[in-house]
Amino acid sequence: MPGNSFGQIFKITTFGESHGPGLGVVVDGCPSRIKLCTADFESAMTRRRPGRQIYDSPRQEPDRVEILSGIFEDQTTGAPITLYIHHQDADSKPYDILRQLFRPGHADYAYFKKYGHFDFRGGGRSSARETAARVAAGVVAQKVLSPLGVEIQAYSLEIGGIRAEKTDLVYARQNPFYFPDPALNSKVEQALQQAKEEGDSLGGIVEARVRGCPAGLGEPVFDKLDADLAKAVMSLGAVKGCEIGDGFAVAGLKGSQNNDAITPAGFTTNHSGGILGGISTGADIILRAAVKPIPSITIEQQTIDRHLQPARLKMTGRFDTTAVPRMVPVVEAMISLVLADHYLRHRAGK
Amino acid sequence: MPGNSFGQIFKITTFGESHGPGLGVVVDGCPSRIKLCTADFESAMTRRRPGRQIYDSPRQEPDRVEILSGIFEDQTTGAPITLYIHHQDADSKPYDILRQLFRPGHADYAYFKKYGHFDFRGGGRSSARETAARVAAGVVAQKVLSPLGVEIQAYSLEIGGIRAEKTDLVYARQNPFYFPDPALNSKVEQALQQAKEEGDSLGGIVEARVRGCPAGLGEPVFDKLDADLAKAVMSLGAVKGCEIGDGFAVAGLKGSQNNDAITPAGFTTNHSGGILGGISTGADIILRAAVKPIPSITIEQQTIDRHLQPARLKMTGRFDTTAVPRMVPVVEAMISLVLADHYLRHRAGK
Amino acid sequence: MPGNSFGQIFKITTFGESHGPGLGVVVDGCPSRIKLCTADFESAMTRRRPGRQIYDSPRQEPDRVEILSGIFEDQTTGAPITLYIHHQDADSKPYDILRQLFRPGHADYAYFKKYGHFDFRGGGRSSARETAARVAAGVVAQKVLSPLGVEIQAYSLEIGGIRAEKTDLVYARQNPFYFPDPALNSKVEQALQQAKEEGDSLGGIVEARVRGCPAGLGEPVFDKLDADLAKAVMSLGAVKGCEIGDGFAVAGLKGSQNNDAITPAGFTTNHSGGILGGISTGADIILRAAVKPIPSITIEQQTIDRHLQPARLKMTGRFDTTAVPRMVPVVEAMISLVLADHYLRHRAGK
Amino acid sequence: MPGNSFGQIFKITTFGESHGPGLGVVVDGCPSRIKLCTADFESAMTRRRPGRQIYDSPRQEPDRVEILSGIFEDQTTGAPITLYIHHQDADSKPYDILRQLFRPGHADYAYFKKYGHFDFRGGGRSSARETAARVAAGVVAQKVLSPLGVEIQAYSLEIGGIRAEKTDLVYARQNPFYFPDPALNSKVEQALQQAKEEGDSLGGIVEARVRGCPAGLGEPVFDKLDADLAKAVMSLGAVKGCEIGDGFAVAGLKGSQNNDAITPAGFTTNHSGGILGGISTGADIILRAAVKPIPSITIEQQTIDRHLQPARLKMTGRFDTTAVPRMVPVVEAMISLVLADHYLRHRAGK
Repeated sequence: MPGNSFGQIFKITTFGESHGPGLGVVVDGCPSRIKLCTADFESAMTRRRPGRQIYDSPRQEPDRVEILSGIFEDQTTGAPITLYIHHQDADSKPYDILRQLFRPGHADYAYFKKYGHFDFRGGGRSSARETAARVAAGVVAQKVLSPLGVEIQAYSLEIGGIRAEKTDLVYARQNPFYFPDPALNSKVEQALQQAKEEGDSLGGIVEARVRGCPAGLGEPVFDKLDADLAKAVMSLGAVKGCEIGDGFAVAGLKGSQNNDAITPAGFTTNHSGGILGGISTGADIILRAAVKPIPSITIEQQTIDRHLQPARLKMTGRFDTTAVPRMVPVVEAMISLVLADHYLRHRAGK
Repeated sequence: MPGNSFGQIFKITTFGESHGPGLGVVVDGCPSRIKLCTADFESAMTRRRPGRQIYDSPRQEPDRVEILSGIFEDQTTGAPITLYIHHQDADSKPYDILRQLFRPGHADYAYFKKYGHFDFRGGGRSSARETAARVAAGVVAQKVLSPLGVEIQAYSLEIGGIRAEKTDLVYARQNPFYFPDPALNSKVEQALQQAKEEGDSLGGIVEARVRGCPAGLGEPVFDKLDADLAKAVMSLGAVKGCEIGDGFAVAGLKGSQNNDAITPAGFTTNHSGGILGGISTGADIILRAAVKPIPSITIEQQTIDRHLQPARLKMTGRFDTTAVPRMVPVVEAMISLVLADHYLRHRAGK
Repeated sequence: MPGNSFGQIFKITTFGESHGPGLGVVVDGCPSRIKLCTADFESAMTRRRPGRQIYDSPRQEPDRVEILSGIFEDQTTGAPITLYIHHQDADSKPYDILRQLFRPGHADYAYFKKYGHFDFRGGGRSSARETAARVAAGVVAQKVLSPLGVEIQAYSLEIGGIRAEKTDLVYARQNPFYFPDPALNSKVEQALQQAKEEGDSLGGIVEARVRGCPAGLGEPVFDKLDADLAKAVMSLGAVKGCEIGDGFAVAGLKGSQNNDAITPAGFTTNHSGGILGGISTGADIILRAAVKPIPSITIEQQTIDRHLQPARLKMTGRFDTTAVPRMVPVVEAMISLVLADHYLRHRAGK
Repeated sequence: MPGNSFGQIFKITTFGESHGPGLGVVVDGCPSRIKLCTADFESAMTRRRPGRQIYDSPRQEPDRVEILSGIFEDQTTGAPITLYIHHQDADSKPYDILRQLFRPGHADYAYFKKYGHFDFRGGGRSSARETAARVAAGVVAQKVLSPLGVEIQAYSLEIGGIRAEKTDLVYARQNPFYFPDPALNSKVEQALQQAKEEGDSLGGIVEARVRGCPAGLGEPVFDKLDADLAKAVMSLGAVKGCEIGDGFAVAGLKGSQNNDAITPAGFTTNHSGGILGGISTGADIILRAAVKPIPSITIEQQTIDRHLQPARLKMTGRFDTTAVPRMVPVVEAMISLVLADHYLRHRAGK
């Protein structure tokens, strides 16, 4: 059972490797007569793309989205929409030394055990580059959601141990780390600078807030909205944890503290993060994803080769220092995809 | 698109309400010629069932599993296996006062918004009772996994803010809270006692450890093993967060700390929790689920009625003080279901 | 990948064997707030049930449908609806001699090759009795379709080589063979009588006509309405062919003959059988299914045993002489299921 | 619920319109380590492509398959394989007059009713050109099946009312109509010539024979092998009927005639067409598909425009005279896809 598709009614299938000819996604199930053209993808792709700042790897990809199918006279037709990003800067030379060695923290070893061989050119299918296709698909999902007035914003709640104490969403949208606390931003920059000098990398937390999601999305009992959101963000290679609302903090709460009182004007608190029984309540949806430090570091590491013999690996090249800001638009895209799918599912079941 | 099924090849569909005639599950995709009889379900159902201890609600259900289909001469045939638990103690009278009011922290309001009416008798489909069907299905999943030698054990890592400092798996399996730290067990008991007296409830954390899972399970890119595990546990109504390996702690780690070095004898550490790139590596799988305090409390709460008018709700009756121990076998079952499905998926794709 | 489910949004999963405790179906994805009670199933189950006439096997089953889940206060809730028929007359003794021998024309040999063992008590899962669960599910599908004013009627177009020359739908609904031509009905009866005396059985053709199906149902390109209808009827064990509209007769037509001219009042002819490009056009849907003669005959047959040694099989007992009339309500049910599913799919995608 | 995917484990998703930038297919679920390169597609694409003979439309497309993903070092990796055919000769000018009129026998009207607008440039998504993507995917399916020694051959059993009386499979493979009877081939040619002169088109029947299919493929009860084969061929726009084995002829047979006797050496006859109870028996699979005459004809026809006003349509341009030969490789591809999927499903369930 293949695993490259996501969604039930608004369904995407991504394809492509980090160092193959390109990346793409087929979006199937998009309603007809929605305006869509290549320009619609520019801003989202730019938000995600590498080369934005000095802590990112220098791979320069404009990530221009081509529309291969599904659009006629600038409108969706109901046919599958194929979005394609042709690779222009996929230099696979630096990876040749990796033909023999498994990079710690990467998927190489697991893929080798599963498939008997693996694409050592930058991770192939397991590369974070695959998320570019998700971001492109997320733009279409946003179009589906737009009549609802849903607003999705993610930001870097924490980078390298520095956690925002304030959430300025306007600031978050503008600064290159998508960090929402102006007062602590320089600390983030210092931490990144230091890690970079050490040849190391940093983890963090992405938080997302969804406003204006109508009540009623989510399908009992397995396809709960929070279950699908968790799957969506945990399907990102770097994410190791996911929380909705108070998340792990509920472990220390009592029922009388955690229950959100209901009034005619809505809930008085939002411990639940906008979801009860797996169904949206109309309150803001709050989600957090734990992002691990990028495994590609220039510090020497212990590993084994394909013949299971011990080896030392000292990676060269320039890598991102943290994946956190790059994850921000990807998390937004994944949330859009889940909500668009559940919106259409809800409509079908009504 | 209905949401009552889980799994792709080893696929279950649960049905039934807390106060309807019974609960059940259809297990489709189980290989043929596996020995299975009703006695196989007894121990798992007993581990989950209410009435085990004074902090649990007094509903007395033997939870006897009937096999309605799929077994011939004590073996699976390849046909769908239907497991059914006839309700014997589903007294819906205490719930009659809830016809008009939405219980805070429960799914009532969300279901009402979604479906236009709802089963107010104990939550109907959203009741935790539905998990009994999952536990029954988990027994079949365990049978599928048994040739692999996989061992799955969950326990209550934290209850009411008291976190185990030691993990004695033998102790955890035997004590009524499934709590793994003998030294702190009495503190847990005190906390439960106090909350009970206050008419309140407690949250906590369930941790699970999987030993002997072969490398190679999990399907890139959306059906990663960790993504499916996260969905599995987040599809439990009480779970608000999920972590694999170091989980949210990765946010504070550097790449050089978080990468697990590889040696011919295996990984030297297990920050990844046994999964890299969404595929099992052969190391122990570590998962944690945050369990919210049970929303049914006897302290008076603020809510609204069906006509959206303000109301006060003082629930009577006896409720569980915490869901954490009850979740332990359910989390084990969900992990079994995910692993059995991915084991068969892996076999198909080989 | 299990095969006991059908449909995407209105999805059913059937379970149960001919000689197990019972048969059932879980209907998932039915919209909420539809009136439904056990009495709704009586007429459809009666139309299908054995013992209606002397050419049927004497198994006497009232086929009373129990509702195990999904209904609250006589309405659907959006939860999965489980319908269950407890077997009362499943005498497995006559089948004991079949433990060793594969019955020609039955699924025994194929199941044995697939699963390594098989339920020799009347075919187990491959028995036509499984269709009772489909008929029950079809009743729910009809409820979903009822606001559309769709009318589905099937009848026995041909039995034992006698083909109706006239289609009197009122007569077809009333006579025990569901045969639509009063003038030829006695010939059908004679043919059945003669086959019965010879210990033989007869095949035939079921034709169905759907009136009032709205235009626009069916999903390009694989889930065309005709493709799903074909799958639906070909999933009945006795069906060996399926046609839409002119069917195989199109092979001899020219484009100028086969194209249905379009006028403001609709199509002037209906060669297409109400479906173009896989999408309903609003014209009547016409479908035919070829039904093979029942393989259970009392004439001695050549076969092999489990050890692949030659054997002679002389079946005793009384069997149906033809499956054709029994298939009529089943074909109606399958069409209802396909249309209900495509109606909800269409609604989601709008 | 989108309809552009087919298969469960070996799953394809096609995309692209007749007059868009190109056509493609994502093949997900193909096992790793299968040799595959672009040259593998040439012969199948050539068999299908237009311009082979004077009775075909003059659109000249080399139909060169590009591999956009899933192959590394000339082997499959387990990642989704994307095959793409860039259109080179998609002149949409002739279709401009069709902006206003629905072509009889085509999907235009149905698409317009479903989606509110439609791609009038040659049918867009409903064009037979979409089948090129299926043929490309079929090549990959063949690779999956190759260890089994399965041989699939289709041919034109009947064209324009001329039915082959002899089945010379070698001849069938070589002659441009894929017609298997040398003695009647000139009659076929005459019929085509005459229809062409009249501006008309011809229907026919494609028959396929599968040798060497192992017993045990097919999943009870809905995903029977014959049900999935029927869906596969009925999902081709031109196919109006499907038969397995004796097909509609079973209607006139008695059980004693239709049952295939079983001997240690296999079945003595093959009325069942290699499938019993929805599962392959090891005997040859026999399938027939009724192909309607191509609806594009130059004879004037009655139709309506977008405003539902009456109109006359006289199409110009050169169209295929029959779709039958073109369908031959497509039917082979669809059978390959079904068998590859069921082979992997069977392997998973073992």
